Amino acid sequence: MKQKLQIEVCLTPAVFEKYQNPDSNVVVIDILRATSAICTAFMNGVDTLIPVRTLDEAKAMKEQGYLVAAERDGLVKDFADFGNSPFNFSKERVQGNTIVYSTTNGTNAIQMADTCNAVLIGSFLNLSALEQYLVKNNRDVVLLCAAWKDKFNLEDTVFAGALAARLLSHANFSTICDSTHASVDLWNIAKKDLVGYMEKSAQRERLRKNNLDDVIPYCHTLDLTDTIPFLKDGKLILLT
Amino acid sequence: MKQKLQIEVCLTPAVFEKYQNPDSNVVVIDILRATSAICTAFMNGVDTLIPVRTLDEAKAMKEQGYLVAAERDGLVKDFADFGNSPFNFSKERVQGNTIVYSTTNGTNAIQMADTCNAVLIGSFLNLSALEQYLVKNNRDVVLLCAAWKDKFNLEDTVFAGALAARLLSHANFSTICDSTHASVDLWNIAKKDLVGYMEKSAQRERLRKNNLDDVIPYCHTLDLTDTIPFLKDGKLILLT
Repeated sequence: MKQKLQIEVCLTPAVFEKYQNPDSNVVVIDILRATSAICTAFMNGVDTLIPVRTLDEAKAMKEQGYLVAAERDGLVKDFADFGNSPFNFSKERVQGNTIVYSTTNGTNAIQMADTCNAVLIGSFLNLSALEQYLVKNNRDVVLLCAAWKDKFNLEDTVFAGALAARLLSHANFSTICDSTHASVDLWNIAKKDLVGYMEKSAQRERLRKNNLDDVIPYCHTLDLTDTIPFLKDGKLILLT
Repeated sequence: MKQKLQIEVCLTPAVFEKYQNPDSNVVVIDILRATSAICTAFMNGVDTLIPVRTLDEAKAMKEQGYLVAAERDGLVKDFADFGNSPFNFSKERVQGNTIVYSTTNGTNAIQMADTCNAVLIGSFLNLSALEQYLVKNNRDVVLLCAAWKDKFNLEDTVFAGALAARLLSHANFSTICDSTHASVDLWNIAKKDLVGYMEKSAQRERLRKNNLDDVIPYCHTLDLTDTIPFLKDGKLILLT
């Protein structure tokens, strides 16, 4: 009998080395807000996003003339053109452009995953597109939650559960991974009222304090786009 | 208004430094099987358990004449007097004795937690005793899951959820920690059929493969003892 493809959920980048596999496809997840913003930018026609880890790199590239999105702890940096809200990445501002991107948790996770077969960007906005691609591509899958400064977060985990549940509904996927089981169970609770469930998330509260929580319903909307951003030679482009 | 006491759940020792707090009480959790075994040993009258991280240390102390419990990946080491099954620690074998103890995940987590106010050993076997002590002792609480080689596991997390739910039922405790919310939600699913829920746990499967799964129902039994083992000067003794 052919061995089934395995799904694993890595709940924090701090333990990603335990899940790293050059044969796996990795989906990077930072629902509030980096990967929701990245999916929005590609939905609205951005050409390329260049993830960079440090603000120094982002600043240096701004000085070279790049458009730059840079955020730390939810707040846009003063030298940057964009913050981390998906609403920043409107068609008018991004179409055809290349944008340098640095966020608290998301860009770090993206670069970390670059040892695997393919790095895909995941959010509720492109859930079904991801499901279809991963089923067709027929490899083991690691769902990497960007988390919050290495601490577990609810919204990334619940999304990992949503995608894992979708994949497990296909006969060629299976899991023996406890964090995948837990994520699916949390998704099954949360899906009844996704935005309501996220009321208790720490990141939801952080955004509220900074009046940045207007994005919460948007970031929990399913299937707004069938675009999948993916990493090629250190840059995010559209998977075609 | 007085600030409420905070509960946090640390899902893997790999990120414990993010939760470390010299003012907190820490409960170390390794349900299958180290902390269930330790609680059993104290229930049956062991005098002192000396946790050591490495097998070399355990072996050296065996040569000095100590009784030694030593296990890796579920299997008892050949130089040791005991493995890691709670059923090893019967009254006849442990009463009044000092035993050196080294396991795959549990002893590492115990020593790591020793920077906090108090290190307590938790399992389903002493759940209510822990609840009562932590409420009375009136400090912030960190629930440290020993996990499996730094990977999340279900049984430790579900127990953390059980204890967190108990504490949160007391007005002086609160949480803003996503992993605590997730653990409580998982406990609320699992508690309807705790042993049945654990069927999908990876550690349950590992134990089954080695014919060591006779302990599963026992390790998920609530309140067999009101003893609480705690760490003093690097040794586990009974909290009185």
